Amino acid sequence: MHELQRVIELDSGAQRGADQGGSHSQLVPPDAMRAVEEQLVVVIPCMNETRRVIEGVLSGIPHDCLIILVSNSARTPVDRYEIEVQSLEQFCRSAERPAIAIHQRDPGLAAAVKAAGMPELIDDEGLVRTGKGEAMLIGMAMAAMTGRRYLGYVDADNYVPGAVNEYCKAYAAGLHLASADSPYSMVRISWHSKPKLRDGRLFFSRRGRSSEVTNMFLNRLVAEYSGFGTEVIATGNAGEHALSLELGMRMRLAGGFAVEPFEYVELFEQFGGVLPVVATQVLPHSVPVLQIETRNPHFHDNKGEDHVKGMRMQALNVLYHSPVALPAVREAILEFMVSEGALAPGQEPPRERIYPPVGSLSFGTFLDALSSEATSFRQVGRVLADIDRHPVG
Amino acid sequence: MHELQRVIELDSGAQRGADQGGSHSQLVPPDAMRAVEEQLVVVIPCMNETRRVIEGVLSGIPHDCLIILVSNSARTPVDRYEIEVQSLEQFCRSAERPAIAIHQRDPGLAAAVKAAGMPELIDDEGLVRTGKGEAMLIGMAMAAMTGRRYLGYVDADNYVPGAVNEYCKAYAAGLHLASADSPYSMVRISWHSKPKLRDGRLFFSRRGRSSEVTNMFLNRLVAEYSGFGTEVIATGNAGEHALSLELGMRMRLAGGFAVEPFEYVELFEQFGGVLPVVATQVLPHSVPVLQIETRNPHFHDNKGEDHVKGMRMQALNVLYHSPVALPAVREAILEFMVSEGALAPGQEPPRERIYPPVGSLSFGTFLDALSSEATSFRQVGRVLADIDRHPVG
Repeated sequence: MHELQRVIELDSGAQRGADQGGSHSQLVPPDAMRAVEEQLVVVIPCMNETRRVIEGVLSGIPHDCLIILVSNSARTPVDRYEIEVQSLEQFCRSAERPAIAIHQRDPGLAAAVKAAGMPELIDDEGLVRTGKGEAMLIGMAMAAMTGRRYLGYVDADNYVPGAVNEYCKAYAAGLHLASADSPYSMVRISWHSKPKLRDGRLFFSRRGRSSEVTNMFLNRLVAEYSGFGTEVIATGNAGEHALSLELGMRMRLAGGFAVEPFEYVELFEQFGGVLPVVATQVLPHSVPVLQIETRNPHFHDNKGEDHVKGMRMQALNVLYHSPVALPAVREAILEFMVSEGALAPGQEPPRERIYPPVGSLSFGTFLDALSSEATSFRQVGRVLADIDRHPVG
Repeated sequence: MHELQRVIELDSGAQRGADQGGSHSQLVPPDAMRAVEEQLVVVIPCMNETRRVIEGVLSGIPHDCLIILVSNSARTPVDRYEIEVQSLEQFCRSAERPAIAIHQRDPGLAAAVKAAGMPELIDDEGLVRTGKGEAMLIGMAMAAMTGRRYLGYVDADNYVPGAVNEYCKAYAAGLHLASADSPYSMVRISWHSKPKLRDGRLFFSRRGRSSEVTNMFLNRLVAEYSGFGTEVIATGNAGEHALSLELGMRMRLAGGFAVEPFEYVELFEQFGGVLPVVATQVLPHSVPVLQIETRNPHFHDNKGEDHVKGMRMQALNVLYHSPVALPAVREAILEFMVSEGALAPGQEPPRERIYPPVGSLSFGTFLDALSSEATSFRQVGRVLADIDRHPVG
């Protein structure tokens, strides 16, 4: 796990060699970034954002990246998904680039998921469960079928196209650097600041309300094992993150908003990571996790206090129930949740859903069912026409 | 004058040829943009911005552009200029790039300006006048001495580094396209939206309060000549704009906030432009003006209602007093100003200061005096060591 790194320039020029960064900086030349972008799928989980905001996010994604929109937007009374697909198609026409879109609650998608072997993802209505983690899982499954090597996530509720662009550039730079060491790599974004309204004024907050708590407990866990206090983890809740599909296909994902912090827990549980625990999978390579602080403010809609509290608690639920959590950490989590009024004294935190690795899906079956049954499934440019039925990983 | 063009993607990829844009779009390949950036000086007029905001703006300027900071920040009780220079130097060290800084109210700068032959710029205190136009003029004079071909302006009060980056990329793309036609070219930015606080909520306004009025009267002027109503001018107040120095050196600049709208007036007056008037200078080429709508929101500090009103009135003052303004336009301006309470009925709008073209300066004298007398003059990397004493133009 690497200490937080900072972006110095959004564009570092083309004229210098890769080894000519300053003594404390690393320089990734444009060609290297381009090479990663050509292998990068960007998945956008989306729910009820305005057309204007979506158009901005799309415009920020570098041209060579492949866009996959996974929407859980309302389809009645107005079919917002249809509007999103129209925006996507219009953008792709102007920019001459391909894309894929799917609706999370499409019965045809549920049928394909079931047929491909992941019934855990289906709810009582027979549809893919709602939730961000579930959307990300679907996105990863689609990404795996494109044959590309990398996957990055970008939230749809971002008012700053330039920030989206910087996230993708940071993914490309980070994946390039990390891939030198290992086929398994992850890049997580720590945004520079978050503009918030406070007393009718704008205030640039350095920390997210949810991230602060998640990072604190993750760092506490690392500290309990190492015996040294640490603040190494700065990206526990990072919605913006990217990884090699070779890694992604082997990871279990959590449902809902537990998905991002659970990635750390999963790295600890399954692959050892910084913790000297017996990993259940032994990988032939280490898993470098780069954390990058970007320059742009992370400027999005305020989803309210309940949303933040929910995110925070879901993060703690997965940490609490992880076999790697030591008693002292569990105790601290319980105390915190009770003090927040999120748990009655003596109760246990609820368990979050944990899904099997995406790599366990039968992709041939998945695509066949998707093509024949999922009416919301759209391709601009027939990306999956020549599907690689033996996807990466 | 070209109709407003829109940015489709912030990064359009490297793999396509320059002629392969969509049928309604133009594609400028990265190499062509890079070639312009290597010739582009970015001048940042700055007054009392926080260190954090300045660092963000600097990070957004593409590496190959040369930065010139022209500051009018307070020097007591805290020397804010010194803090700005420290930020600039630290950034340049990390990013390994050169820069220049100067303080607008440095007595040595005033001496250099006087010696170089522009006493009009000096006020009663014997210093360079305060004002944005004046800072831009100083920046242009410094830019001319670097031997580079293009100059772009970026305001220092921008919270979104990605927007700064996009402005510079739009300059590069626009100057590349315009330079095919003429050595004189100008690119002006129309921002996509401006986030504002309204009733404790954020509202993304499409128009600036000042721009709306300026554009309306500029368009009215064009319409009076052509006989056709028009909205072609969308960037009358564009703080963000760029031009070839061959053009810049020949243009008179206005003082204060009249500087940006006066550029249009000057193009009409001196070079004909879209108006069939007798131009006082006959150029062997036309002057293409590209207007580009960027994707990012223009997110800056709210300078208050007075600031906006002041800007608006200064724009109208220069238009009113221009020889190209037809009686009907003058009448409309008077009516508007009276209705706004900015002018008593029967009064004439005040005149704004108009300075001679920067090309009239004696650059050898200017640099000698600057180097020996201006204590605030800083170079990171000795940009002007081998000064071209016969600058562009």
